[in-house]
Amino acid sequence: MIFQNENSYEVKEKIENSRVAILPIGAVEAHGPHLPLGTDNYLAEQLSQRVADKTGAFVLPTLPYGQVWSLKNFPGSINVSNQSLISLICDIGESLHHQGFRVFVLINGHLGNAVAIKEAARKLYETVPDLKVLYLFYPGVKAITDELRDTPSAHASYFHACEIETSYMLYLAEQHVDMAKAISDIPDIPPSADVTPTPWEEFTASAVLGDATLASREKGEAIIEVALANMVEQIEQAKKSLGNK
Amino acid sequence: MIFQNENSYEVKEKIENSRVAILPIGAVEAHGPHLPLGTDNYLAEQLSQRVADKTGAFVLPTLPYGQVWSLKNFPGSINVSNQSLISLICDIGESLHHQGFRVFVLINGHLGNAVAIKEAARKLYETVPDLKVLYLFYPGVKAITDELRDTPSAHASYFHACEIETSYMLYLAEQHVDMAKAISDIPDIPPSADVTPTPWEEFTASAVLGDATLASREKGEAIIEVALANMVEQIEQAKKSLGNK
Amino acid sequence: MIFQNENSYEVKEKIENSRVAILPIGAVEAHGPHLPLGTDNYLAEQLSQRVADKTGAFVLPTLPYGQVWSLKNFPGSINVSNQSLISLICDIGESLHHQGFRVFVLINGHLGNAVAIKEAARKLYETVPDLKVLYLFYPGVKAITDELRDTPSAHASYFHACEIETSYMLYLAEQHVDMAKAISDIPDIPPSADVTPTPWEEFTASAVLGDATLASREKGEAIIEVALANMVEQIEQAKKSLGNK
Amino acid sequence: MIFQNENSYEVKEKIENSRVAILPIGAVEAHGPHLPLGTDNYLAEQLSQRVADKTGAFVLPTLPYGQVWSLKNFPGSINVSNQSLISLICDIGESLHHQGFRVFVLINGHLGNAVAIKEAARKLYETVPDLKVLYLFYPGVKAITDELRDTPSAHASYFHACEIETSYMLYLAEQHVDMAKAISDIPDIPPSADVTPTPWEEFTASAVLGDATLASREKGEAIIEVALANMVEQIEQAKKSLGNK
Amino acid sequence: MIFQNENSYEVKEKIENSRVAILPIGAVEAHGPHLPLGTDNYLAEQLSQRVADKTGAFVLPTLPYGQVWSLKNFPGSINVSNQSLISLICDIGESLHHQGFRVFVLINGHLGNAVAIKEAARKLYETVPDLKVLYLFYPGVKAITDELRDTPSAHASYFHACEIETSYMLYLAEQHVDMAKAISDIPDIPPSADVTPTPWEEFTASAVLGDATLASREKGEAIIEVALANMVEQIEQAKKSLGNK
Amino acid sequence: MIFQNENSYEVKEKIENSRVAILPIGAVEAHGPHLPLGTDNYLAEQLSQRVADKTGAFVLPTLPYGQVWSLKNFPGSINVSNQSLISLICDIGESLHHQGFRVFVLINGHLGNAVAIKEAARKLYETVPDLKVLYLFYPGVKAITDELRDTPSAHASYFHACEIETSYMLYLAEQHVDMAKAISDIPDIPPSADVTPTPWEEFTASAVLGDATLASREKGEAIIEVALANMVEQIEQAKKSLGNK
Repeated sequence: MIFQNENSYEVKEKIENSRVAILPIGAVEAHGPHLPLGTDNYLAEQLSQRVADKTGAFVLPTLPYGQVWSLKNFPGSINVSNQSLISLICDIGESLHHQGFRVFVLINGHLGNAVAIKEAARKLYETVPDLKVLYLFYPGVKAITDELRDTPSAHASYFHACEIETSYMLYLAEQHVDMAKAISDIPDIPPSADVTPTPWEEFTASAVLGDATLASREKGEAIIEVALANMVEQIEQAKKSLGNK
Repeated sequence: MIFQNENSYEVKEKIENSRVAILPIGAVEAHGPHLPLGTDNYLAEQLSQRVADKTGAFVLPTLPYGQVWSLKNFPGSINVSNQSLISLICDIGESLHHQGFRVFVLINGHLGNAVAIKEAARKLYETVPDLKVLYLFYPGVKAITDELRDTPSAHASYFHACEIETSYMLYLAEQHVDMAKAISDIPDIPPSADVTPTPWEEFTASAVLGDATLASREKGEAIIEVALANMVEQIEQAKKSLGNK
Repeated sequence: MIFQNENSYEVKEKIENSRVAILPIGAVEAHGPHLPLGTDNYLAEQLSQRVADKTGAFVLPTLPYGQVWSLKNFPGSINVSNQSLISLICDIGESLHHQGFRVFVLINGHLGNAVAIKEAARKLYETVPDLKVLYLFYPGVKAITDELRDTPSAHASYFHACEIETSYMLYLAEQHVDMAKAISDIPDIPPSADVTPTPWEEFTASAVLGDATLASREKGEAIIEVALANMVEQIEQAKKSLGNK
Repeated sequence: MIFQNENSYEVKEKIENSRVAILPIGAVEAHGPHLPLGTDNYLAEQLSQRVADKTGAFVLPTLPYGQVWSLKNFPGSINVSNQSLISLICDIGESLHHQGFRVFVLINGHLGNAVAIKEAARKLYETVPDLKVLYLFYPGVKAITDELRDTPSAHASYFHACEIETSYMLYLAEQHVDMAKAISDIPDIPPSADVTPTPWEEFTASAVLGDATLASREKGEAIIEVALANMVEQIEQAKKSLGNK
Repeated sequence: MIFQNENSYEVKEKIENSRVAILPIGAVEAHGPHLPLGTDNYLAEQLSQRVADKTGAFVLPTLPYGQVWSLKNFPGSINVSNQSLISLICDIGESLHHQGFRVFVLINGHLGNAVAIKEAARKLYETVPDLKVLYLFYPGVKAITDELRDTPSAHASYFHACEIETSYMLYLAEQHVDMAKAISDIPDIPPSADVTPTPWEEFTASAVLGDATLASREKGEAIIEVALANMVEQIEQAKKSLGNK
Repeated sequence: MIFQNENSYEVKEKIENSRVAILPIGAVEAHGPHLPLGTDNYLAEQLSQRVADKTGAFVLPTLPYGQVWSLKNFPGSINVSNQSLISLICDIGESLHHQGFRVFVLINGHLGNAVAIKEAARKLYETVPDLKVLYLFYPGVKAITDELRDTPSAHASYFHACEIETSYMLYLAEQHVDMAKAISDIPDIPPSADVTPTPWEEFTASAVLGDATLASREKGEAIIEVALANMVEQIEQAKKSLGNK
């Protein structure tokens, strides 16, 4: 159910039946030589579509610009501020509520957006309290990822254009991956990167945080399917919590 | 040249060669029974692609949310504030400039965005003075439109889901038009609508401002080709003004 | 009825009887050699007084600073931002509502203020929904103007210090016009001026957009009287819509 | 020298010769039964004109809306926020500087504006450091006022529509005073009014803080002339400090 | 009753019994050679504790950063903006109200904070109208101060690191005073300092505005006890005004 | 070196020698029955003092209010917004830079502040690029904590008033701990708490996330000493990076 393909005459009833809107949100950002700048957008869109199929939700048009402060000096990155994102997401959420939606799901393909999304969700919690807002960034995949990966993670919370993210792309948007160009580049991220603002050019020239050559569609599928199942479960719970309201 | 399909390793040189980025900007808004909510997004995207083909510009991912205050109470409309749009467009413009672009073209499919876009353009004029910002909303089509239309316009400056906009869609995105549902609904817009805030439900139930049944691919083509030629000309002029800077 | 000449003891009842407040809003801006910097203020004030006489409205003190981005580099122009205007107009509107006014009329003498005024009106529509806000900039004068003018307009929507505006001044504030200095200067405004931020010094040295020597009191009277009649009609309609509330 | 009566062709040189712009700033506010709502505007305007005559400064159009929080619930008061005032004054100051002015004098007729004006002056001190900003609210009149007044002041810093302010009006704008309606109403202002937000209706019904019947043109003249002399001296000092810059 | 030493299990009932929270607010600012940078913090804290003892109020943790624009260029001063202070104080006030407090007392040790505190109090007056906000800066000490001081005040409203403030410190925080270093430095503050932004380095090198060598514990005690008595009275009045709400 | 105990005459040279300022930042927040509301403030202060002793840094006065959205409905919590914190921290940072500091260390005792601190640090990275900003929240303690804890963590990233935090307090501020009241309360935090705004009262009545009875001074010491060593190392690195600038 692609929201922008609906027409105004019929959509009202469909919204009442579905009550769930999914906003894919990604970024335009450097992802090494083998993945496109729009990687996070493609991932968010593909995840959203699959989740929508399983939950009867509407997929909204993708919000394709994200906060990419860390990589903003790499060729091709387009950075927008947390403040702009927060403001826009709040507007969208309030409008969705006005339209009759009661669950607003942000499926996020880019970790850098997490702060803005959470802040916006808290603001909406005050302004439209009966709108349930979910922010989903590959929920519940830690165990399966640790099991499947062949190289250790370069960082406790970041992953980028690496074995893992490339595997996601191979499963969800293979046509945008050029494995012939995939490289391995495991940076030594200094501890200071966690305690002071650190543009990534200070520790990587490629923006690849790992060994992308080890990526596989199978790894991607295994992890993504766990993420999808968890997303669907959260949405179903949220729908149940609406009751007959 | 779809910007988000480029990769970071190769895009730098391509930007230096092109220097022009196009942002399609539309809206999600009621467009009657025969046109989809995403009409303005589809139009902006199609126009952008054609202009890019003729000018060597990059097409950025579409900004698909717009200011639809007038129609925000119609089923399916998603409204965002001028303030959010201004802030986001400024961020994008500054980031494009940082990436080496020198002409930032906003191809707009929704009149309601014009105020925010112009304000953002003026702000960018101060913050990044050597970035040329163009805002293009069907430039120079008045004469040809007046000539081709079979019904008079319902309003001096608005057109919406009518003979004209439906013709645009038939030429640019026919697969999203359902002419079997097209209607004629010529509202009597009171003069007060121009002098006091007036949500459109006060004068139309359909959101169609004219006779959509008179739309044709041919009319669309004739007008759109004029608009495209004017857009291309403005961009070529802007490129020339860059000189060898 | 000059609002600021009233005293606090008697004004309450008068407000209840009138319910309509008019804010003249203009600008300080270059208007060629023959018109003063305060042209738009004088016009707004004169129009307001006449409209007040016919409608029983109060005239508030003039807000004499406007957004003159386009002419801000010409000698004598004082530019204020849209944001400042919006904020101030919203404050005034909320305070008028608190005082018992139910119709807030902005009689605008400067086109550049239109964006801020409309945005403020929409904000007031949310914050004080039972305050009717009217923004009036020479409403309904297109036909009579086209008929009377001896030279074509230099631009589809701008007019400035030209045959038309000078005629307005000759009718409404003749003492501030020096026709001996009036000039004809018909600029060739490039199409780009409509699609990119373009300070007017790029296409005019005089800030006169037309032939001011052709101005006459008679032309001014004919057009202004149409504008006044339309303003009065809009205000009377607004008053009627209040009913016995 | 009324700034808005100048024309753009001649004003540039005059600005260079004068370099000083005066902004009268007042308010629309309840002033008892005998003084008009615009009292503070009339005072600011009259003071400004006289100061301009003696200093060769330009008088700008009056900013006639002020922060009247304390009296906003009295009939006729129009309150605007500190934030709006600060923003507008900063815009005006920056524009004056751009036009070639180097001394920006705010002659203030309403104590409630003092906070906003001082904050704006400090902001301008950062953004346009070579613009000298003066804020003048009856400077240096304490001694003469204490000497001349026949009744003690109702409050350490406020005076309002009382013996003193009415005397000012009798000297500067007698045509707006109706002494037949003047009253004496000396409120008992509780100490709490200085330590917690206290709208004045909590301690006065008239908004008169003293005995207006004791006002006289002579008292007004004596005090105002001291204020004027001090204003002129401050401006002359500021002009001297410009040197040949 | 030190608020932050309470635990969550028991504090609820104590808040209901007390209903009064005191926020000491000071600054980090140059205070000459004999007083520490934190002088205003120590004073605010000591006053708060004594007032709390007499009124059963809670003392909150000190807000130790203030607006010190005038002295920001002196060694050791840390300046924060009015805007930041207003925003933070409003947050704290709203949260205190949510916790059950009904009287919010700001005991201020630094005159420069007065504007921000008053503005915040007015905002809270709108957002949480049943929270009484008191701002207390040595209330009612004018007479006793004039009586006790051996040197005239250097300025009508400022006092700083002088006979008076040093006496306060000798009474309230003697351990932080080094009288051996105390100096007398009576600046000639020009009248312009009251009418244009004037960093204090323009008229003093020491930041001492008077003769600190004349300070004594006794003077401090006499004045401070008056201030304390007035503070306690204001708080008791505020508590009474709550009634049984 | 307690910054606010310094005097203005001597501090300038000391700043030049030290160049490092530490801001302890905590919160007032419910911490169960055995820990005080000010727990995070006490921890931040104690850590700061020890780090200062080892690095020659100055300790600034504690910023004792934090963002406690999750616990704001628990008795005693005082919540301030991210926006207020960001604004205040930026002001402080800019002022420290103006005073000659070149390393600004935020030692944070409350996880909820992390978002605001990081955003402020990034803003300072733009406005005062030669100020190094470090944000330190128990860096590098994961391994030692996992090794020492006797109960598993209730959540992947939160810890609160539990075995761990209570141990910290026993080591750093034992006088504020009442172990007799310590409880074990291991909540079942639902996965939804990570994907939708979830005030903690939805899953805990005590605000204790674990078994506080297992806390010990020894555990605290072991972990805290690791944290301290890492903090010191980061600061020393930052100092070295200053070179002789």
